[in-house]
Amino acid sequence: MQRSLDPAKVAQKYLDEVRNGLESLTETLSVVGFVTSDDLPSLTYANATQQKFTDVGIAYELRRIARLDLEDAIIEVNENSDIHGLFVYLPVFNNEQDVILRNLVDYRKDIEGGGQYWTRKLYDNDRFAAADDQTKKALLPCTPLAIIKMLTEAGVYLANTELPVSDRIVTIFNRSEVVGRPLAAMLSNDGARVFSFDINGPLEFNDGKPAEIDITRHHALAQSDIVITGVPSENFQKVSAAEIKKDAACLNFSFYSNFEEDIATRTGIFIPRIGPLTVAMCMRNTLRLYKNFHQSQTRDHSR
Amino acid sequence: MQRSLDPAKVAQKYLDEVRNGLESLTETLSVVGFVTSDDLPSLTYANATQQKFTDVGIAYELRRIARLDLEDAIIEVNENSDIHGLFVYLPVFNNEQDVILRNLVDYRKDIEGGGQYWTRKLYDNDRFAAADDQTKKALLPCTPLAIIKMLTEAGVYLANTELPVSDRIVTIFNRSEVVGRPLAAMLSNDGARVFSFDINGPLEFNDGKPAEIDITRHHALAQSDIVITGVPSENFQKVSAAEIKKDAACLNFSFYSNFEEDIATRTGIFIPRIGPLTVAMCMRNTLRLYKNFHQSQTRDHSR
Repeated sequence: MQRSLDPAKVAQKYLDEVRNGLESLTETLSVVGFVTSDDLPSLTYANATQQKFTDVGIAYELRRIARLDLEDAIIEVNENSDIHGLFVYLPVFNNEQDVILRNLVDYRKDIEGGGQYWTRKLYDNDRFAAADDQTKKALLPCTPLAIIKMLTEAGVYLANTELPVSDRIVTIFNRSEVVGRPLAAMLSNDGARVFSFDINGPLEFNDGKPAEIDITRHHALAQSDIVITGVPSENFQKVSAAEIKKDAACLNFSFYSNFEEDIATRTGIFIPRIGPLTVAMCMRNTLRLYKNFHQSQTRDHSR
Repeated sequence: MQRSLDPAKVAQKYLDEVRNGLESLTETLSVVGFVTSDDLPSLTYANATQQKFTDVGIAYELRRIARLDLEDAIIEVNENSDIHGLFVYLPVFNNEQDVILRNLVDYRKDIEGGGQYWTRKLYDNDRFAAADDQTKKALLPCTPLAIIKMLTEAGVYLANTELPVSDRIVTIFNRSEVVGRPLAAMLSNDGARVFSFDINGPLEFNDGKPAEIDITRHHALAQSDIVITGVPSENFQKVSAAEIKKDAACLNFSFYSNFEEDIATRTGIFIPRIGPLTVAMCMRNTLRLYKNFHQSQTRDHSR
């Protein structure tokens, strides 16, 4: 196995795929990104996203906006048929209002796939975008999807098999509605036994469904073939080499490093970040949403 | 002005109103309440709610359920046309999943009025339940509604005037999506200037809209005619008599007392709790939802 994997390199083939998909269209896809933060790392990240979309051939307009104007602005974009996708840089309020914001985005423009419309389908293992049309595939949230693509690249997730992570034990630190919970559902649907930790304690997922369990972090880590971290806090006790099973695959998707520096001395593979691949999955979602919901509308008009 | 006001007494006239409304119907209204907690105060509260609904003549089935089965159970009730209303006792997970739960309730059965469908209408000052029918009034979330009814009873909110709290200054400690934020929008729509505090700091609401403001708790309290608290924490620094304007109206809707014991020495009126009136508003909402969405369906079937 490789000892590390560059998400930017893995992203490249998906970007090429999206670029090819765009070439067969008659229209340029148009996305709006809303950023409310003033701090430099957030703005740098937002500008980098814009650059990546533009490079692939999607028109990406980045709008800086006051946080209190954001709800009205989202509704306006929802209603604007010239815009095909919407990206909201979170956190904004850092409380439940952010959940409201995410769910205010029309599901047909939710290129991050983080709204309740799409995650609900995922929890129901419903693979289609609309009940009446089995040619249209459902959207998957971009970060969990990027994680699965990285694990595939690492040879840990065996794509094109019936149960790609059968008999694997996975520990995930994060159970947010947009990453940790959908990821636990997806991996357990694909055969894994998943221990899911958040600040309120552990749950165990099997076959896509959560159950109560009483297990310590120590006990979960010692038996896990895959360890995935996404805790947005410096206070998280980082996972160290001594805690994990030898040759485990370890992946961090938090902005903070949730692993100790010694982790790579014991991992089979260590993936310290997945950011660029998440953005690529977001573009892939943009194209899928366009084909599912916007392209057909255009056709209807032209007839 | 009175020095205190009993919410159970105020509730009585609304309960009578609901009872009269029910008598003119041919069908018994049916509500399901889901409770996941095992602790005695929660169960006692749930049983009390059930008793109150039953007393008024609404069939109220209380179901104890494991928290991990709740989403499926909500969806099942949403789809069951024999059930007209749904009550979910929160908190369940005590994180963003609770926001998801609340929004999973079909808006036509959301008797608490706390889902995004109804609060969005409130923020847009849209008073109607459906865009195509101005005879159907929109629902208001039950706790903010109960608070306004209490303030009306206290003579602080002048119902039947154009701007019932014109020129009043209000401070609210709580900006949750289900109480504090809708309440701030409602009171400011009705003429007040509202300082809204939560853990992330203050906002100022005028004419239903929030704006950034830099103001201390001390400065806000000293000029407020109405002080409303709803902080679900024992660590909140309770509001004391010395902090408030003389003869201010003070109201607490938190399960915890957010006022010091000395508060009544300086208030015009002190309302320490509003629970029973909230339940009455919830029944009022049940009746309104039935008339808006369920009764007409029945009629359609019978024709």
